[in-house]
Amino acid sequence: MTTLVLSALMRPLLEPRLPEGLDVHWFATQEEALQVAPQAEIGWFDLYDKQAMANTVRAATKLKWLNSIYAGLDFLPMDVLIERDITVTNGVGINAITIAEYVVMGMLTIAKGYRDVVRAQERREWLLDSPGKRELAGSKALLLGYGAIGKLIKPRLEAFDVEVTVVRRSGGEGALTPDQWRGKLGEFDWVILAVPATPETDGMIGAAELAAMKSDAVIVNIARGAVIDQPALVEALEAKRIGGAFLDVTTPEPLPPEDKLWTLDNAHITMHLSGRAQDKMFQRSADRFLDNLGKYLKGEPVAPVFDPRLGY
Amino acid sequence: MTTLVLSALMRPLLEPRLPEGLDVHWFATQEEALQVAPQAEIGWFDLYDKQAMANTVRAATKLKWLNSIYAGLDFLPMDVLIERDITVTNGVGINAITIAEYVVMGMLTIAKGYRDVVRAQERREWLLDSPGKRELAGSKALLLGYGAIGKLIKPRLEAFDVEVTVVRRSGGEGALTPDQWRGKLGEFDWVILAVPATPETDGMIGAAELAAMKSDAVIVNIARGAVIDQPALVEALEAKRIGGAFLDVTTPEPLPPEDKLWTLDNAHITMHLSGRAQDKMFQRSADRFLDNLGKYLKGEPVAPVFDPRLGY
Repeated sequence: MTTLVLSALMRPLLEPRLPEGLDVHWFATQEEALQVAPQAEIGWFDLYDKQAMANTVRAATKLKWLNSIYAGLDFLPMDVLIERDITVTNGVGINAITIAEYVVMGMLTIAKGYRDVVRAQERREWLLDSPGKRELAGSKALLLGYGAIGKLIKPRLEAFDVEVTVVRRSGGEGALTPDQWRGKLGEFDWVILAVPATPETDGMIGAAELAAMKSDAVIVNIARGAVIDQPALVEALEAKRIGGAFLDVTTPEPLPPEDKLWTLDNAHITMHLSGRAQDKMFQRSADRFLDNLGKYLKGEPVAPVFDPRLGY
Repeated sequence: MTTLVLSALMRPLLEPRLPEGLDVHWFATQEEALQVAPQAEIGWFDLYDKQAMANTVRAATKLKWLNSIYAGLDFLPMDVLIERDITVTNGVGINAITIAEYVVMGMLTIAKGYRDVVRAQERREWLLDSPGKRELAGSKALLLGYGAIGKLIKPRLEAFDVEVTVVRRSGGEGALTPDQWRGKLGEFDWVILAVPATPETDGMIGAAELAAMKSDAVIVNIARGAVIDQPALVEALEAKRIGGAFLDVTTPEPLPPEDKLWTLDNAHITMHLSGRAQDKMFQRSADRFLDNLGKYLKGEPVAPVFDPRLGY
């Protein structure tokens, strides 16, 4: 009999729809997860504590298929996944719609200075002019990363007449390759980071890249905090060498209360909420898992597969 | 010789590009405008004080062509414009791009609860869940008014996979006519008011329409405050009978500090800034005027023409 070890959080959505004849264990705490993990052939080990989740994977010595609601799984032990030849399906695309919506929201609110409008309402003050006077129309965006999220960002921005230039490993029509974009950084009004978290993307935006940007360019990060050299970013924002930063992700998370980023008037911090700004995440994730489970039991391939050698 | 009376605000953009052989007067104050108006064949009388602007039109007894940067000219004396057969060109479309961008921004910020994210940053608080959990994707919008602004709103929303239903006098494929939309109000997540200010649209959203809306529907008004029965709206918002209101326009403007609207947590007030959230308005308006001036002097028709009989 196939043994499944699944988070009790998903139980209401999964249990009524699971096929017959499976040995299913539900865990509610990280201790329970760790205890039952060694029995699992199929595991859905999502835990808020990422270290505990990694430990659960290490303990799952019989695991053949690991599923997760998360898209970024850089906190898992890649060596263990590779060595044990575990198939991993991740949540790539589950949150892509709301994250793409969030990116456009961030750009629009910065363009129009909307944060100052919110504050004026609190003071009951009728502003006579707009605190922001940019239009998206006619502006240029560099989109780094063209996965599930990037593919949704592009058409949304193009509907606003933004000229979007994509960076892809493979290059292609109108796209830049990873060795071309740095030389063109000065041409863009928006630099959008939607890359996976890999050793290659770690610190890909540092002091040199920030210095190459236009003085009013805005950087948008919905990837991982580590993609940006954060001390260099704070320096650039303080010196107003760039226009601003819309940061859904930071280093570390949560950002400590004493961190200077909180107080910079050109830093917009959204606390890794972009993917959570929707209520269909668990339903979509359950639907996908059940579809994959049917395939797995028939010996067919599951999807989307996360490759621990690549990190995405 | 053709006599022009023009606002000195436009002088830097117009003077270097005006044709030779014209008698041009620039006014800097409403008193100067009133004094020189009687000489004008062509007038660009824009003044912040709308009453003074109307008085200037009344004093311009030789006026043949009146130009304005404003799209809505409902504060002008229509009887005078009709009686003297004055051609009127307005600013319709000049601000349409930024207003359409503003509408989508308003919808996104409400969908994601972004105002509460702004406030959390001020408190240096790392929120653990999103205060708003809506996606635009899959939602339905009713778009009342399909002029220059409405035509830009529709494709932008459709790029977010919003199903947009338009109301037009003429009806047409997938559109509703003015006598059809009230019966379908309960089907929409968003009701967007982009109609011109006319006797017909005055108070078109009252207690009955608000009661017919979904309990989480959001109304977006970038038309005129008078299009909504504001006391009825305040009542509906206070009782949470609708989800919220994004109000670029109010009655009156400016909204007095003691008005209850300021304090309702589901009222989002943007102080008629949507059209000002860009820096190309004066340049676009000057370009259009100079193009029209060339046509006028050759006896060709100018555009876009505002019809004082229709009010738009």
